[in-house]
Amino acid sequence: MTSSPVPPELATLRRSIDNLDAALVHTLAERFRCTQAVGELKARLDLPAADPEREKRQIARLRALATESGLDADFAEKFLTLVIEEVIRHHEHLSGAEAAALSAAAGRAPAPR
Amino acid sequence: MTSSPVPPELATLRRSIDNLDAALVHTLAERFRCTQAVGELKARLDLPAADPEREKRQIARLRALATESGLDADFAEKFLTLVIEEVIRHHEHLSGAEAAALSAAAGRAPAPR
Repeated sequence: MTSSPVPPELATLRRSIDNLDAALVHTLAERFRCTQAVGELKARLDLPAADPEREKRQIARLRALATESGLDADFAEKFLTLVIEEVIRHHEHLSGAEAAALSAAAGRAPAPR
Repeated sequence: MTSSPVPPELATLRRSIDNLDAALVHTLAERFRCTQAVGELKARLDLPAADPEREKRQIARLRALATESGLDADFAEKFLTLVIEEVIRHHEHLSGAEAAALSAAAGRAPAPR
């Protein structure tokens, strides 16, 4: 397969996009480190993995931030939904594992889930 | 509706998450500004909206960056796919509009699409 040469103006824009993508990946990695800590805390305090009220506030806030910065608000919501679904998946997995570990540490059988 | 008080440790983590979300939204907004410029350039140079080879390289690079920074590589790919789909949707819309504008400026009928 041969590819046509990339016009210089396009190459310049693509370098910016690649830098922004690296920033996005690293920021997402840090966000999941925070939500991992939230998950551990929620498992320890026996709080539910999902918090629909908090999610509603997050979505409303991000939609407003998106509009302010010229990002499509529906896209921002779709993006946050993808992230939150992944976080809840992690938390549910974690709370199962943590519950088992905490129960074992306390010498109890895990509570039914 | 009443909500239980948020433990201070959870409130601290949530403040970090909210800051990271603002960073993500603003970085995404800037990325779409770049891809908007790419779309205009592609319409002007009559290049196709999608570039599957470039996309493959972007996905491979982001998976590697994700792994390096502790982010799930499958999630990073899902995220980039969501972004690229949105970009292509913009470009297709744009190339239709640009084609019409360019044709009108040149006194020609738009090329069939």
